[in-house]
Amino acid sequence: MIPRYSRPEMVALWEPESKFQIWFEIEAHATDALAEIGVVPKEAAKAIWEKGAFDVDRIDEIEREVKHDVIAFLTNVAENVGEEARFMHQGMTSSDVLDTCLAVQLARASDILLADIDALLAAIKERAYEHKFTPTIGRSHGIHGEPVTFGLKLAQAYAEFERNRERLVLARKEIATCAISGAVGTFANIDPKVEEHVAAKLGLEVEPVSTQVIPRDRHAQYFATLGVIASSVERLAVEVRHLQRTEVLEAEEYFSPGQKGSSAMPHKRNPILTENLTGLARMVRSYAMPAMENVALWHERDISHSSVERMIGPDATITLDFALARLTGVIEKLLIYPERMQKNLDRMGGLVHSQRVLLALTQAGISREDSYRIVQRNAMKVWESDGEIALLDLLKADPDVTAKLSHEELEDRFNLDYHFKHVETIFARVFGE
Amino acid sequence: MIPRYSRPEMVALWEPESKFQIWFEIEAHATDALAEIGVVPKEAAKAIWEKGAFDVDRIDEIEREVKHDVIAFLTNVAENVGEEARFMHQGMTSSDVLDTCLAVQLARASDILLADIDALLAAIKERAYEHKFTPTIGRSHGIHGEPVTFGLKLAQAYAEFERNRERLVLARKEIATCAISGAVGTFANIDPKVEEHVAAKLGLEVEPVSTQVIPRDRHAQYFATLGVIASSVERLAVEVRHLQRTEVLEAEEYFSPGQKGSSAMPHKRNPILTENLTGLARMVRSYAMPAMENVALWHERDISHSSVERMIGPDATITLDFALARLTGVIEKLLIYPERMQKNLDRMGGLVHSQRVLLALTQAGISREDSYRIVQRNAMKVWESDGEIALLDLLKADPDVTAKLSHEELEDRFNLDYHFKHVETIFARVFGE
Amino acid sequence: MIPRYSRPEMVALWEPESKFQIWFEIEAHATDALAEIGVVPKEAAKAIWEKGAFDVDRIDEIEREVKHDVIAFLTNVAENVGEEARFMHQGMTSSDVLDTCLAVQLARASDILLADIDALLAAIKERAYEHKFTPTIGRSHGIHGEPVTFGLKLAQAYAEFERNRERLVLARKEIATCAISGAVGTFANIDPKVEEHVAAKLGLEVEPVSTQVIPRDRHAQYFATLGVIASSVERLAVEVRHLQRTEVLEAEEYFSPGQKGSSAMPHKRNPILTENLTGLARMVRSYAMPAMENVALWHERDISHSSVERMIGPDATITLDFALARLTGVIEKLLIYPERMQKNLDRMGGLVHSQRVLLALTQAGISREDSYRIVQRNAMKVWESDGEIALLDLLKADPDVTAKLSHEELEDRFNLDYHFKHVETIFARVFGE
Amino acid sequence: MIPRYSRPEMVALWEPESKFQIWFEIEAHATDALAEIGVVPKEAAKAIWEKGAFDVDRIDEIEREVKHDVIAFLTNVAENVGEEARFMHQGMTSSDVLDTCLAVQLARASDILLADIDALLAAIKERAYEHKFTPTIGRSHGIHGEPVTFGLKLAQAYAEFERNRERLVLARKEIATCAISGAVGTFANIDPKVEEHVAAKLGLEVEPVSTQVIPRDRHAQYFATLGVIASSVERLAVEVRHLQRTEVLEAEEYFSPGQKGSSAMPHKRNPILTENLTGLARMVRSYAMPAMENVALWHERDISHSSVERMIGPDATITLDFALARLTGVIEKLLIYPERMQKNLDRMGGLVHSQRVLLALTQAGISREDSYRIVQRNAMKVWESDGEIALLDLLKADPDVTAKLSHEELEDRFNLDYHFKHVETIFARVFGE
Repeated sequence: MIPRYSRPEMVALWEPESKFQIWFEIEAHATDALAEIGVVPKEAAKAIWEKGAFDVDRIDEIEREVKHDVIAFLTNVAENVGEEARFMHQGMTSSDVLDTCLAVQLARASDILLADIDALLAAIKERAYEHKFTPTIGRSHGIHGEPVTFGLKLAQAYAEFERNRERLVLARKEIATCAISGAVGTFANIDPKVEEHVAAKLGLEVEPVSTQVIPRDRHAQYFATLGVIASSVERLAVEVRHLQRTEVLEAEEYFSPGQKGSSAMPHKRNPILTENLTGLARMVRSYAMPAMENVALWHERDISHSSVERMIGPDATITLDFALARLTGVIEKLLIYPERMQKNLDRMGGLVHSQRVLLALTQAGISREDSYRIVQRNAMKVWESDGEIALLDLLKADPDVTAKLSHEELEDRFNLDYHFKHVETIFARVFGE
Repeated sequence: MIPRYSRPEMVALWEPESKFQIWFEIEAHATDALAEIGVVPKEAAKAIWEKGAFDVDRIDEIEREVKHDVIAFLTNVAENVGEEARFMHQGMTSSDVLDTCLAVQLARASDILLADIDALLAAIKERAYEHKFTPTIGRSHGIHGEPVTFGLKLAQAYAEFERNRERLVLARKEIATCAISGAVGTFANIDPKVEEHVAAKLGLEVEPVSTQVIPRDRHAQYFATLGVIASSVERLAVEVRHLQRTEVLEAEEYFSPGQKGSSAMPHKRNPILTENLTGLARMVRSYAMPAMENVALWHERDISHSSVERMIGPDATITLDFALARLTGVIEKLLIYPERMQKNLDRMGGLVHSQRVLLALTQAGISREDSYRIVQRNAMKVWESDGEIALLDLLKADPDVTAKLSHEELEDRFNLDYHFKHVETIFARVFGE
Repeated sequence: MIPRYSRPEMVALWEPESKFQIWFEIEAHATDALAEIGVVPKEAAKAIWEKGAFDVDRIDEIEREVKHDVIAFLTNVAENVGEEARFMHQGMTSSDVLDTCLAVQLARASDILLADIDALLAAIKERAYEHKFTPTIGRSHGIHGEPVTFGLKLAQAYAEFERNRERLVLARKEIATCAISGAVGTFANIDPKVEEHVAAKLGLEVEPVSTQVIPRDRHAQYFATLGVIASSVERLAVEVRHLQRTEVLEAEEYFSPGQKGSSAMPHKRNPILTENLTGLARMVRSYAMPAMENVALWHERDISHSSVERMIGPDATITLDFALARLTGVIEKLLIYPERMQKNLDRMGGLVHSQRVLLALTQAGISREDSYRIVQRNAMKVWESDGEIALLDLLKADPDVTAKLSHEELEDRFNLDYHFKHVETIFARVFGE
Repeated sequence: MIPRYSRPEMVALWEPESKFQIWFEIEAHATDALAEIGVVPKEAAKAIWEKGAFDVDRIDEIEREVKHDVIAFLTNVAENVGEEARFMHQGMTSSDVLDTCLAVQLARASDILLADIDALLAAIKERAYEHKFTPTIGRSHGIHGEPVTFGLKLAQAYAEFERNRERLVLARKEIATCAISGAVGTFANIDPKVEEHVAAKLGLEVEPVSTQVIPRDRHAQYFATLGVIASSVERLAVEVRHLQRTEVLEAEEYFSPGQKGSSAMPHKRNPILTENLTGLARMVRSYAMPAMENVALWHERDISHSSVERMIGPDATITLDFALARLTGVIEKLLIYPERMQKNLDRMGGLVHSQRVLLALTQAGISREDSYRIVQRNAMKVWESDGEIALLDLLKADPDVTAKLSHEELEDRFNLDYHFKHVETIFARVFGE
């Protein structure tokens, strides 16, 4: 995590203060449950809630001495709660606290990320409707193909991030489990009811079988899902970068009117936000690998997963949060240039319509071979002129063509609307409206 | 894919014969739909089903000439169908066929993998119940912790693969979509009804918005999920490898009675199947990365994903299928040695029970500090004897202990059943019985 | 490995025939050395060379029975050699044969790859000199920056692949070691002289300390290096893809004059080779991960690396070989369009020269602020005209400019040669000529 | 980077203070060179060195306004230098400063890492000689194989880290280059002599051809190499973890005499340092992937690499530095238990020697089949007794054996020294002494 690529809410979630607050809640809820089943006095549970407090600096101080974070925390809480603190943590292990806390943190991180995706979806939808019928060239292989609308491009992005939203909801479910099962997970010294109680209070599911730790296949699936979402961020970022290329320039990252690009070169407006997102996506994606390697812990548990999670827990969520928010800003304020889109569409002198003319000639009775030859000889001239000559003009002047097709019929083949007749269908599928 | 690590059913799915058969069905169903909406004659659709046939060698021969696989296929089918073949593929692009075919192949591959997981789950469950109450030592950090049962170990594996099953069901849903939307996905030359018809016939969902290609975030999520499943395979494989270590030897990969280990060394039985699985897991996991990099295609599509998928499509599914089946075999036939487990449990002279004695002394009125000192001075002797001296014997001979606890009370603290009182709870959670 | 992306020489290297031939040579050389030091009769060594032969099918047949590839091989050779075959493999383990064979295969694969890089370097150099002074726009962030030459672009690619060549030479050295050290690598039953002899004969270095297996950090470094080379392949491929975009079209993958693009659309020439290379690069890169995970074998050895290497050994080298050869073909036959480059250069109406005008005005005594204002007001007009108006014309008509700079002086600032004065320097650095 | 896994010297290298100091040196040296060739006054260069100063907070303040880090830095320096500061940065781009600075940082980071490896090598060597002839069982597949010495295990680790040292020296060379080539790398506005001068002063090589940025294949190779080194860290860490297992316990991470393991369980000493190292290795390894993806920048440069490097630059070097130092500490203080090694060696009742007996019987004239049968029937008894019965005793009592081999001859076959006769050879190869 580096400040430059992070936002305060997500950062706060991973700070010691938040972590210890969650630890406190786990311990306090657990003591409630222990009191409920008669293992500890009800007064103790009450005292913990009432007098429970901790201080990060003091915990650090104790940890430097005892070299154990959970013990340091408990000691500090005991300093505030007094005598009754000895009933806390009864029959529990450190992992019960640590793993359940991580579950809470990742669940909350997911909620922030879900809100991020919602904001992004709203931004994409807004711009998609705005440009529902803005014609632009569809490109396969970077080469002009057939016309699409700019709204369609965004509809695809919308559908992709809706899928990502669903994936994240499922991924959140994966990691939102509570384990309070004691050493090696047998509940030998703690009743499963405690786990049920804490889980309910923290909005988690009970982990059916933990082995001191929550199994790491859950986290692997979680971080892999973040990696997929980051890859979608990259896709949309790369689209903007392509559109902003000098030769294409159909859209640009926002640039305030007074803003200087580069010294004297007004054309020098670089898609630096989306380039930055491309890099961030690479990072988030990369965290999936160590998360998967974490799955094969030895026997009931080893602690090799811990250093990985201390790093990728914050890094993956903070970076993805930042990236989603940045992408939302890019889309919201994206400068979109329909005129330039039209210019690019026309750039090939109407060659994108050649296929439809070919079909029209065939339907008018000319053999496919002859039709092809007729169209191609005109198309080649357009091509050689680098789009300066318009195909439609050439066709209108070609007697072999006009023998079969009137000028009106020809013009009809150059109508963009033909390509857009199912835009509504696709929008209805995507936006459900 | 290499023959050594593959099974025939999954391999067959990826062979040209299967692929072309799926292509044929896509084209034939599409022609049905085109006929239904009046774009092509119904006779044509009928003729295709009736006379449609293809020959892999002939397609190869044509492809060498035209350098386009879909055209080669269509040409060969036309050779068999005759005249009416010209109505096939109307308004479609090659991608419509290729991407929908990949969806069918991955969905079918998923069905095989789901059956694999079911078989694995059945094997794990069988052995879990068989050893529901077989005591064994639970290990954290590779160090003896507290007792568990061997059934519990397997219950955890069961729960993990049930999660993997659910993930795979979701991943299958991700990729089981049909796109027949024509060039750049606008349906300009093909009615969306065709897509709906073909999707229904092939058991796929309609892709809401394709851009000539099905978006690759779907495939990224799919292969990432296979990577997670492979990581779980690794976990269970590593568990077996640990258990088979000479010094542990609590379980072994099956070894037929007459089988020779290594020349004259009867102890040389190597866990080669699970070592092999560890390596295969690394491979399946690695395929998630290129699948994620495939997401950011340029504009409406580029074809950089294709070479990746030609490789990882078969490689990931064939390897995981093989791995799951091999793991199932390992579990089914695993030689399990309860006596050795007991011996290892006893190995530390009963030290695993020291914590319970400590608690008993405290509850009997001795201060925590004194209790700790008393237990530790005995425990240290056990430790120094390398487990030759039993802790219980020492405690029975320690007057500070016997002043507070009778021999019966002491023995009770050495009762393994104490640790197993929630085995039923956990089994009920996991197996729902 | 799939046939579509492979070339025969590299494929042959990984076929059973080649492998067994290498095994035979290892065994035969080892027997020579054993004879030399008097452990086995010299006649035996001679007999092995003279009568030694094997048959892949027969080996397979035996392996199906004994389930051990090296034993199957030795048995088959013995069938041909007769009695004296019993002196083969004395004191050796299977790993001695397998690991040394892998070293030979990877070394030979490296030689093929080095030849591939040499061919690529030659192709790049040829085209670099051809276009040493062909002006083209340099782009940062996909946006026009300052002029470069097309030769400079290729010079950079040349330097990059020269580095890759050096890396591959080092990587080859990493894996070209011979281990014939017997069980757990102690030489207990085989003299180190045997290893030295075999190493010398096969052109390998002696592995200083093996533990039955050659340490896998060597292979990790090897496959990581292939991943880096593949990433450079991707870079050059992406460059071509960008240059071929419809709007840029400064270069194209070769297209034979008679070749049809897509039906009637002559512009539809897709950079499919370089897109394909982009995907292949992803694959080769991904193999670095499992190779690195292979390093941490358990104790003296486990066999988890084996399945990984059976896959990535051929897959990585075959794919990279194919990719390098394909890239060489792309560069050799690349259609390069200097006129279009010039057109694109001029596209911004000369804005790329604005910085030099700014400097000239400053040097002529106008303050930096005023100079900036003067240049920018002209530049903005050019920008708004989308490059239709030329900056030079505007400047010549601006009295504030002409008061300080003559038309000649202005024109001088629009001279591309200014940017190219160090092309020779760079070429000298890169090509050393 | 998280404080828990970092060391001050490496952290300092990546702090703003260090970065700006390097920037200052680059600019000041460049101005020297510019003065030398007469482009700027010599007084200016002198003034910069004399009055040049910067303040991190002030730079931050300026950057918040101008949103450009290099400009903010130059402005702040100018505030201190005064008028003559305008001669700084003449003809340079921000990338010249940023990329050259990264080169200096990575080179210095490499120097720290090299020192780390040297310390690790020294620690390994010390312990290797200490246990040069300490017998221990060699294990393949986690199963007892043949005897080795503990010194041999460490010799292998030594050789591996020596290779890593060489790799790092080469990787350092890869990234230690200087680029001061101006916009798009043409030297249009800056003489190559400046680059040569700065390179020499900073101990870097000149980058033969940069394109505004230093090519990222260099960094990819660098981070991939760190990944390989991390994988070797993992290997040695995993070895320690295995040795510390309760059932093996041949070595342990250091534990101070007074230190408490876990409450009352004296055996509960967990290999937490090496488990931690296993996780850290996963992280360092993962950074190779985004570094490789960074290679394919668009055209002359895009800035997608930057966010990746801001993260992995510090993260990879800081984590690896910490890991190497931690591993060195583990090795230096490793508790090694030769008695337990011997006990484990004897554990199989001498079965590890069975192969030598077999050979002796064969040499004594018994057929191989008969020899095998004789040895195996005795070995099986040992095996069934779980090592309680000694093979040597059984053989001495077997008349078929004693008919051919005397007790002395038999005992000779159980001599461990037989296995260690080439320890000197291997040590000489590895330590060169």
